[in-house]
Amino acid sequence: MNQIAKTPEPPYYAVVFTSVRTATDQGYADMAEKMMALASNQPGFLGVESVRQDGGLGITVSYWKDTESIRKWKNHAAHQQAQQLGRHKWYSSYRIRVAKIVREYGN
Amino acid sequence: MNQIAKTPEPPYYAVVFTSVRTATDQGYADMAEKMMALASNQPGFLGVESVRQDGGLGITVSYWKDTESIRKWKNHAAHQQAQQLGRHKWYSSYRIRVAKIVREYGN
Repeated sequence: MNQIAKTPEPPYYAVVFTSVRTATDQGYADMAEKMMALASNQPGFLGVESVRQDGGLGITVSYWKDTESIRKWKNHAAHQQAQQLGRHKWYSSYRIRVAKIVREYGN
Repeated sequence: MNQIAKTPEPPYYAVVFTSVRTATDQGYADMAEKMMALASNQPGFLGVESVRQDGGLGITVSYWKDTESIRKWKNHAAHQQAQQLGRHKWYSSYRIRVAKIVREYGN
């Protein structure tokens, strides 16, 4: 997890999920791990990068083949349940941005 | 810095900068702060979100009005110098992805 994702030649898609946590830890780590594993097994999943600062901002970027894969993952039953808990229990604020990756480079 | 960026209605653009640091701290924190301040003053800059895990992955997402603003910031003289130091001194690996944000939602 804690590394740079190996993604294919663009174009492909990304979901940038930025969030601030509440003080409620109950069930969070388990669910985060479970959702990460589940996402990785969805059709069209290309990779994920995730970092959270203790008590601060978290950024998770997941990469997908197309917007249809993203839509299906968003609507996945177990993920829907996790999203609801996230909104009500674990995140004081969050933002989700869906993006088309058009260019990529690095070392 | 350590909060969710207030961005306008899509479409707009993002640069997702993912990196792993070397053990070399010399000058890094100062330069990171300087570049963040400089970026914030560039035309077309819309916001930034940045998180680094101690000794691990860092993700910085900067938001921009258009690809021309991104191109100009990439080519900014002081930023070019910082990029060169980054490649040779501070980052063992990094990836830069340029993206068009097409949809956004949150609480």
